[in-house]
Amino acid sequence: MKQDKPLILVTNDDGISAPGIRALIAVMAEIGTVVIVAPDSPQSATGHSITINDTLYINKISKENDIIQEYSTSGTPVDCVKLAVNEILKRKPDLCVSGINHGSNSSINVIYSGTMSAAVEAGIEGIPAIGFSLLDYSWNADFEPIKSFIRTIALEVLENGLPESVILNVNFPKLAKKEIKGIKICRQAKALWIEKFDKRQTPQGRDYYWLAGEFVNQDNGEDTDEWALANGYVSVVPVQFDLTAHHAIQQLNTWKWNEIANNN
Amino acid sequence: MKQDKPLILVTNDDGISAPGIRALIAVMAEIGTVVIVAPDSPQSATGHSITINDTLYINKISKENDIIQEYSTSGTPVDCVKLAVNEILKRKPDLCVSGINHGSNSSINVIYSGTMSAAVEAGIEGIPAIGFSLLDYSWNADFEPIKSFIRTIALEVLENGLPESVILNVNFPKLAKKEIKGIKICRQAKALWIEKFDKRQTPQGRDYYWLAGEFVNQDNGEDTDEWALANGYVSVVPVQFDLTAHHAIQQLNTWKWNEIANNN
Repeated sequence: MKQDKPLILVTNDDGISAPGIRALIAVMAEIGTVVIVAPDSPQSATGHSITINDTLYINKISKENDIIQEYSTSGTPVDCVKLAVNEILKRKPDLCVSGINHGSNSSINVIYSGTMSAAVEAGIEGIPAIGFSLLDYSWNADFEPIKSFIRTIALEVLENGLPESVILNVNFPKLAKKEIKGIKICRQAKALWIEKFDKRQTPQGRDYYWLAGEFVNQDNGEDTDEWALANGYVSVVPVQFDLTAHHAIQQLNTWKWNEIANNN
Repeated sequence: MKQDKPLILVTNDDGISAPGIRALIAVMAEIGTVVIVAPDSPQSATGHSITINDTLYINKISKENDIIQEYSTSGTPVDCVKLAVNEILKRKPDLCVSGINHGSNSSINVIYSGTMSAAVEAGIEGIPAIGFSLLDYSWNADFEPIKSFIRTIALEVLENGLPESVILNVNFPKLAKKEIKGIKICRQAKALWIEKFDKRQTPQGRDYYWLAGEFVNQDNGEDTDEWALANGYVSVVPVQFDLTAHHAIQQLNTWKWNEIANNN
């Protein structure tokens, strides 16, 4: 019977020992054959970084007869997906899930997120993929209230597939289960981080900086992920990796590009 | 007169000493007041990575009275933009240019590219931004044939601005200037990398991997950047950071999300 189970690749960006991935593994083990390939150390905010100027290592953590096969790598979350598909699984899994991230990946955070970049990489490779994040940055975040949502979203994706070249970015509010009002399909809110670097000095007197900042939502739309999360809903944003601003092509074509070229 | 000149931030991902950024600086110095804030070492393929779990250092390279102010940082290309705007310039520049990258950032490469991620970060912060890349990976690439194109594209953007939340991804074919046919506004081609990891052993006998792969263009469209570049044109793709797959929202809303939520 085991071969009828879906093959599910689990990864994250908080590192293989994070409680968030442990919760995700527990849910996925109920519905499929699980293989874990995750970074050996925290890789938050690594975005779609890949390792091209350095070597990559794979460490097998599970024993040969363990039901769940588990590997850590020295790479980024995106490296983990590439290594998993090409070197460890040697085939595409039926589903790739990333997370559960300790902290929000809503709105503009999607672009900085290692969790989402791993899911997007799987999507680029044609694998149905979902990133899960909980709006709680603490290591001791409580993932219990959201486990059943994750289970059913994963089962729906396994059953229905996803639209071509679309990845799901799922964020959960930090609420008790009974306080979660439901699931909303959303668009990414227009938001950004306003940096406030924290300037300090080394014991030797050299200046250095910590990146800090304030998240600013500039979007009042009630169809956004920020609205959904602030109002007690699970937000689901379909994400694409065609970054073309198609709406801008016509406007840019009104510029005199050939004259520009000819004047050179 | 100097204060009437536009303030131009120059960055890249190949590191501050790369010939590509030197060529870009030379062009920008003709049209504005230039400040360089670039990584102190190569950061290719770092994507939209930012440094949140480590310290950041800034090194001032230029002398106080130098016309061009130059800084290297220990951070990623995106960190460089954040540090430039918030700590070095203390204001938004009138233009941010990134590159010239040694190698292509066309089609799916946009998502892995540190060069483009720096430009996208500037775009998120509301700064007109352009990433420039030449389809020549060599350190000794010849940037002379493309300098006048870069000059006029930058001048056009300074004069016209860019559509809201749009960044330009400009790629140049490796051709003599007279062989370049012109400039084409394009969409990002559907393409991906098929990995072939190169497995080796350390002198101590431990397996390790180098990421290698083959670029596969799956898109025959003549409106794509890959087509333009293969046919002797400069490709200009308008890029956005709203990753929402808006076309998929309606389809996903046909799923029974409330039933899913209620069954939990």
